[in-house]
Amino acid sequence: MPRNDPGPKSSSARFAYGGLERLIHEKARLSILSSLASHPQGLLFTELRTLCALTDGNLSRQLQLLEEADFVEIWKGTRNNRPQTVGKLTGVGRKRFLQYVSVLEGVVADALSGAPSHQTPAASKLSIT
Amino acid sequence: MPRNDPGPKSSSARFAYGGLERLIHEKARLSILSSLASHPQGLLFTELRTLCALTDGNLSRQLQLLEEADFVEIWKGTRNNRPQTVGKLTGVGRKRFLQYVSVLEGVVADALSGAPSHQTPAASKLSIT
Repeated sequence: MPRNDPGPKSSSARFAYGGLERLIHEKARLSILSSLASHPQGLLFTELRTLCALTDGNLSRQLQLLEEADFVEIWKGTRNNRPQTVGKLTGVGRKRFLQYVSVLEGVVADALSGAPSHQTPAASKLSIT
Repeated sequence: MPRNDPGPKSSSARFAYGGLERLIHEKARLSILSSLASHPQGLLFTELRTLCALTDGNLSRQLQLLEEADFVEIWKGTRNNRPQTVGKLTGVGRKRFLQYVSVLEGVVADALSGAPSHQTPAASKLSIT
């Protein structure tokens, strides 16, 4: 079945939130990026796993996707002779994450401005059948 | 392969954002709910389609999911003798949407508080191999 193309985005698409980039919006990746944005020195894999409440497998998958997009860099190293992995936001990742967050701010502002003082019934527009 | 259970959520899961309910977080549904939250009188299907830049098919599917969850009510009626559909947020939908938005506010606050004035190299933790 062919997709019904909504056509070019117009300024009337007031709530389309085009800036909610899928790569960032997915909840696990949002957790990871938010953790890393708050820890510019980078975070150990085990720290990320705890902060984001993710499984090893999911965290690995999401980090790989974020690394492929150049949002995150992965450092392999050792600490006390034990192998460790550190994730760190790249400049690109930080920029795109902050752009995403500015769209989130818009969503929040929309929600707060839309908190109703009264509700007009939908029926005012229609004769309900 | 068995899923690796991250175990019970602890308060150390600081960035897990458990309140980012999947039903609301998905971008198309977030657009729909945000539109409806800003229009307590309800919105015509055609208005929602424009505001959210969604196809007929996708909007129908998402509205159905939201109606099944009792987040949205759908009214069928007529205007100028033409059949029309109005979507409207339910009380439950408004409450859950606002709860979701309060988590978004937390994401935004985390991002703003994490904006770094300097970056410590990840290597400070590791001897990079």
